[in-house]
Amino acid sequence: MSAESPSDQSVPDEVHETLMEATYRALCAEGYANLTMQRIADEAGKSKSLLHYHYGTKHDLLLAFLRHLMERFDAKVDATEGDAPDERLRYLLDKMVPNDGGDGDDDEYDTFGLALMELRTQAPYDEAYREQIAKNERVIRERISAIIRDGIERGVFREVDPDRMTALLFAALDGARLQRVVLSEATDDESAIHPRDVPTEVRTAIDKFVLSDLLTEDR
Amino acid sequence: MSAESPSDQSVPDEVHETLMEATYRALCAEGYANLTMQRIADEAGKSKSLLHYHYGTKHDLLLAFLRHLMERFDAKVDATEGDAPDERLRYLLDKMVPNDGGDGDDDEYDTFGLALMELRTQAPYDEAYREQIAKNERVIRERISAIIRDGIERGVFREVDPDRMTALLFAALDGARLQRVVLSEATDDESAIHPRDVPTEVRTAIDKFVLSDLLTEDR
Repeated sequence: MSAESPSDQSVPDEVHETLMEATYRALCAEGYANLTMQRIADEAGKSKSLLHYHYGTKHDLLLAFLRHLMERFDAKVDATEGDAPDERLRYLLDKMVPNDGGDGDDDEYDTFGLALMELRTQAPYDEAYREQIAKNERVIRERISAIIRDGIERGVFREVDPDRMTALLFAALDGARLQRVVLSEATDDESAIHPRDVPTEVRTAIDKFVLSDLLTEDR
Repeated sequence: MSAESPSDQSVPDEVHETLMEATYRALCAEGYANLTMQRIADEAGKSKSLLHYHYGTKHDLLLAFLRHLMERFDAKVDATEGDAPDERLRYLLDKMVPNDGGDGDDDEYDTFGLALMELRTQAPYDEAYREQIAKNERVIRERISAIIRDGIERGVFREVDPDRMTALLFAALDGARLQRVVLSEATDDESAIHPRDVPTEVRTAIDKFVLSDLLTEDR
């Protein structure tokens, strides 16, 4: 099965959705290294053989899951169509930080974020993961970039290189997530900012130091 | 052996330096998962028993190596003392991107960077790694933050929250490194920016979109 012609296109939509949700919950519970098809089947209330029948190996299922994440991101962006470019941009950036409002208690963000980091560090050893992850990140960049380009055309944002601005925003929130998920349990009571609070702190920094300057009305 | 009282304090300086350099080269060559004490010994031209004698287990040696990275960073910062705050800041940010001038051919940056990412994803499962990595990141943040604070006091930088600005700069370059090292071999010829070029692109974005606004003279 290649990333181009996923066999999961033949899976009924409802079953696919159930299994992708089950994969998400299993990754949160087991992490990447301990993930098994049995655990995903248990989470879905389906048989293991059904999983293999529809998706092939665990590797194939995880590729389908990566495509599912991309499609979900795409759907989120589409849902904002018609909103003002600055609102759309802020909304998408908000989606990349935990929901815990800064109290650091979003366990799902940590366990799933860590599983994704572990999967990503496999990319150099696994061509199919690598190409799918590259595609996911390309889609994220293209969608954010298009919103910035639209904002410039409408005069909401000042003239910047949209791809360069996107690279900065995406890398900052990605790095913040990395720093949090690997160190969320660190004792570390000496830091000005605990690793757990880095994503919300970086999100605020983006508002104060980057977006304030990007918006034409603030200049 | 705890992170607080490293046994490597008893290792003669020259031997310690040789073994830390050998660990670096072995990580570049083998990656994190395949690293062996034998390979490090071979790189150093020393016996494996000498490594065990001075450092204990491979786990202990890697903790000593993490401390070594922190000390090297500290030494780099110290070497800039006396320079202007904006020069010091730019110099440290430059140190976090590859030396390949954007042609994407810095293999050491990729192989070592990947090994470090793999080690960091072990932190949630390993308390000693976690506390040492937290300490390393705290030191990086404190040193950058102190330079920004100094720049504000001298009127070179405008008034910002130094810890918040530091969180943004560090996360952006850390995320850029993550994105490059896991995808440096991706085919991906459709992207506006190839993952390999993300660190240099983000570094440029920091100059254009963040530092230009931080410097008082540019306002």
